[in-house]
Amino acid sequence: MQAARWYAARDVRVEEVAERPLQPGEVRLQVKWCGLCGSDLHEYTHGPVLIPTRPHPLTGKVPPVTLGHEFAAEVVEVGPQVTAWQVGDRVTASACLVCHRCPWCRAGRFNLCERLGSIGLCADGAFAEQVVVPDYTLFRLPEGLSWEAGALAEPAAVALHACKQGRLQPGDTVAVVGAGPIGLLVLQAARSCGAARVFVVEPVAGRRRLAEALGAEAALDPTAVAVDREIHQRTGGLRAEVVFECVGTPPAVETAVKLAGKGGRVVLVGIYTQASPLAWGRIQAHEKTLVGASAYTDEFPLALAMLADGRLQAAPLVTDRIPLRDLATRGLQQVLAEPDRHVKILVSPQ
Amino acid sequence: MQAARWYAARDVRVEEVAERPLQPGEVRLQVKWCGLCGSDLHEYTHGPVLIPTRPHPLTGKVPPVTLGHEFAAEVVEVGPQVTAWQVGDRVTASACLVCHRCPWCRAGRFNLCERLGSIGLCADGAFAEQVVVPDYTLFRLPEGLSWEAGALAEPAAVALHACKQGRLQPGDTVAVVGAGPIGLLVLQAARSCGAARVFVVEPVAGRRRLAEALGAEAALDPTAVAVDREIHQRTGGLRAEVVFECVGTPPAVETAVKLAGKGGRVVLVGIYTQASPLAWGRIQAHEKTLVGASAYTDEFPLALAMLADGRLQAAPLVTDRIPLRDLATRGLQQVLAEPDRHVKILVSPQ
Repeated sequence: MQAARWYAARDVRVEEVAERPLQPGEVRLQVKWCGLCGSDLHEYTHGPVLIPTRPHPLTGKVPPVTLGHEFAAEVVEVGPQVTAWQVGDRVTASACLVCHRCPWCRAGRFNLCERLGSIGLCADGAFAEQVVVPDYTLFRLPEGLSWEAGALAEPAAVALHACKQGRLQPGDTVAVVGAGPIGLLVLQAARSCGAARVFVVEPVAGRRRLAEALGAEAALDPTAVAVDREIHQRTGGLRAEVVFECVGTPPAVETAVKLAGKGGRVVLVGIYTQASPLAWGRIQAHEKTLVGASAYTDEFPLALAMLADGRLQAAPLVTDRIPLRDLATRGLQQVLAEPDRHVKILVSPQ
Repeated sequence: MQAARWYAARDVRVEEVAERPLQPGEVRLQVKWCGLCGSDLHEYTHGPVLIPTRPHPLTGKVPPVTLGHEFAAEVVEVGPQVTAWQVGDRVTASACLVCHRCPWCRAGRFNLCERLGSIGLCADGAFAEQVVVPDYTLFRLPEGLSWEAGALAEPAAVALHACKQGRLQPGDTVAVVGAGPIGLLVLQAARSCGAARVFVVEPVAGRRRLAEALGAEAALDPTAVAVDREIHQRTGGLRAEVVFECVGTPPAVETAVKLAGKGGRVVLVGIYTQASPLAWGRIQAHEKTLVGASAYTDEFPLALAMLADGRLQAAPLVTDRIPLRDLATRGLQQVLAEPDRHVKILVSPQ
């Protein structure tokens, strides 16, 4: 079968790979759509980031590895000891590969597993005709949910987990820094969890328009507007109860901390590679909270339900659909050349 | 009456001041004991920190101001419209002067009041024979609680509020960075709220001994021990579920963030005057929480109950008792000359 395999930074090859037999507990899926994620881009431009350089403790995997972890697929074969799934089932999957034995797994915090791995990084993923995953990762697509929307369940679960980490309450005023795919899903998730008002901070005009179309009260351009002063004024000085930082850079974090009001919560959803200074006194005296949000624990069923009933909209986020054979060219290189034109690119192996 | 008034940094004078008539809602107290707090020392060495330089929005106060906000006292006069208090009542008081009108007050988060002031900084305090306070600040001392222990109710409320901000759960493993008066009260408060194990990090030997006598599983000297590795080993790699940072310096914060395990919470209790770098990626991926704790909201009744029944012990913390007339000499200057010899110094105007 064809698969897009990461060999090294700037070296992703769509090539023929052999199928492997299923181990107990594994399921083989035929991929319908798989979304291109920011972390795939990171691996392409300057990986390995999360791709293991030594055999992964859970999977034993080393490169080359097939990328892709946001997908919808159909079950085509079930391995020994798999009882809950049948050929023909329409599914998506959590990307989290976990040990089920460490203290964090046993506390239900699977995203903190001591041996955490990710499909498409630490095991072969879904930029391929077929993908093999453990049965415990699977979730059934609701009837009527499109394959395309099913491929957005994974980032939607990320967004809902961020809301839970932010202890979002109905009636809260929210700010979202960054309107990429995650920021736009967080915007929708926050509204779906009862946020009264959602402000979005985003420099790209097309993404700001999309944010306002998806329910943002205002999408502000931080290169043109003093965002802090603007949100201070619009909220009568209260600022936001929950701020979601969905960019991952020091200036974005600085903005996020400022936009939180006294007693407010800043949820760190971005991927951060740099340290930057924090004025601890403001956090202490104003009783602000900073909290990380990483992947998800049990948010897939809610993500799928909200995608199915329209509280989360996937279609407006999909800006391109490409065949697998074009992933390395149109997919990866074009989005790097024109980052502002794209939100979510879906890849199909058909 | 005699009062210790702050005029400027290094200029605190014990001098005669006139009594003033009571306004509606005010109560006059005869001070029994008043504790010397770290913030009093900050005002003495490099104030004004919290002392207002312009008329305070709530009290109109400008220096000179009588210091002192951790006290036990007896009611000697009640002003017009005061119905809940009588001459002879044994009381302590919240230091928080609040507006009762802003959104934070109306949400019960009085410590975040827009016009927040503090007795002993923004209004005349209790390093004096008498102090006048609004009736809404008062709490009754439980029968049998000593005047001395009553003077520790205020910092005990700070410690219990820190536990609440830390969402401390029974069974949690806790680390306390800094065993000054607040750290030692946080240690006791954490144990009184069900912490399974409490580790203390403190460079001063006498304070480490006190921490172990008050229930710390181990008090570690960060100048002699690799604290992070030690607590990693002692907890089987789990580290602490809740870490209380009670020092206020960048190295202490760095230690605190390290001692928190995955999913752990760091409560910022210290007073921070410096920014320092934070590695956001570790907070994000490990879903750690940083949260500020400032003063208290509704913790005085619990603090008084726990001081009365012995779950919080005040007496071991009291390392000296001095008369008011010696405050500027023995109290402030001696503690600065020998910071390691003292924990809590109580001052009596009698």
